[in-house]
Amino acid sequence: MSSNDSLARLAAVIESRKPANGGDPGTSYVSRLLHKGPDAFLKKIGEEATEVVMAAKDADHGGDAAKIVYEVADLWFHTLVALAHYGLSPADVIAELERREGTSGIEEKALRKAQLREGAGE
Amino acid sequence: MSSNDSLARLAAVIESRKPANGGDPGTSYVSRLLHKGPDAFLKKIGEEATEVVMAAKDADHGGDAAKIVYEVADLWFHTLVALAHYGLSPADVIAELERREGTSGIEEKALRKAQLREGAGE
Amino acid sequence: MSSNDSLARLAAVIESRKPANGGDPGTSYVSRLLHKGPDAFLKKIGEEATEVVMAAKDADHGGDAAKIVYEVADLWFHTLVALAHYGLSPADVIAELERREGTSGIEEKALRKAQLREGAGE
Amino acid sequence: MSSNDSLARLAAVIESRKPANGGDPGTSYVSRLLHKGPDAFLKKIGEEATEVVMAAKDADHGGDAAKIVYEVADLWFHTLVALAHYGLSPADVIAELERREGTSGIEEKALRKAQLREGAGE
Repeated sequence: MSSNDSLARLAAVIESRKPANGGDPGTSYVSRLLHKGPDAFLKKIGEEATEVVMAAKDADHGGDAAKIVYEVADLWFHTLVALAHYGLSPADVIAELERREGTSGIEEKALRKAQLREGAGE
Repeated sequence: MSSNDSLARLAAVIESRKPANGGDPGTSYVSRLLHKGPDAFLKKIGEEATEVVMAAKDADHGGDAAKIVYEVADLWFHTLVALAHYGLSPADVIAELERREGTSGIEEKALRKAQLREGAGE
Repeated sequence: MSSNDSLARLAAVIESRKPANGGDPGTSYVSRLLHKGPDAFLKKIGEEATEVVMAAKDADHGGDAAKIVYEVADLWFHTLVALAHYGLSPADVIAELERREGTSGIEEKALRKAQLREGAGE
Repeated sequence: MSSNDSLARLAAVIESRKPANGGDPGTSYVSRLLHKGPDAFLKKIGEEATEVVMAAKDADHGGDAAKIVYEVADLWFHTLVALAHYGLSPADVIAELERREGTSGIEEKALRKAQLREGAGE
């Protein structure tokens, strides 16, 4: 099954867990996050990003790279919860990534900024 | 086109930008990040996660939700660069997310932890 | 010289760099951050927190612990800029830390939450 | 009382909570964090940085700025725990901040980098 189907299906599950759609904060973690409101899942995004960084640093020093997969899954999952809350979908993110891929100027612009930073001794 | 195809194709582009695969840090932002090493893209993951949070808080207060899509795309993009560096793929992350979705105990465990935290007054 | 004096003096320098106080974004990094507005320095807080984490992980694996001092200094510095923007001071933060130290129940509450999380298998 | 005394005293309390110094993970939150190891408190640094950002964004939109003080206190507190773990002290961080303040070139370097980034359209 394609990941479009995977991400879209996961987004549909998250959508169904919204309290307004009958999700029960007493039995669903996602319903509970959505019920508590943005700070609950936004805080998790900061926390999970840090866990991705820690898993990657451990892998740099001989740790298990599979841990990175686990932490990136946590991070993506909580961004999907955030997208759902704001009425957005993973398809919107994919479309934005595709748009950039198709715009030849994008990488060059990011590169130019990065080179200027490096030129500044950063 | 499915997002699996999209993410897989984007991962293939990133793979081709590895200096070992002929990517040129002088013309490609991705090559440059990969050439500089993990700290360069890991730092971006922390930064982009913060930008997702800021865009979401702005949306809470009337800002444009489309900004969230842009920032999540940045965040996902830099996690794709990290995955490539460690020999991992978005398909690994999707598989992990599907594994969890198929494991009925996962959400219940996360929920139990969350409820215990709340019981503790967090 | 006490660090109170040090932090208070640093806060005074930052205060003087506010554009409203004559700070020049063309010659001062702090003036420039304050002129650009909250997102500029808040983004740095997320970025510098990530750099503290990376330096600490490197130290865990034999890296130079002095790097941690450098990154914590960066992180504290940007929090001082944020405090200044919102009309707050390091003395406010110190007072809050002292208040907690003097409140015997604080650590116990944090501990109870942490133990509940651990009991939940986190 | 000066904040040097305050931070130094807080650092001394944290030092006394190290398990090697008799701290009890069963009764002290700090002992428990130190006993669990770096990932426990590093994860908190990422999380608390995110909470500072959220509190600041709320203040931008009319929220209570006092919340920022509370979150910065949390962030500084967990960096103090990290410093203690690595045999470092807040005095080391203060010294680094003073060193920079006394080095006239520092802000100019940061400024030059920032201007180059802006010139690049960031």
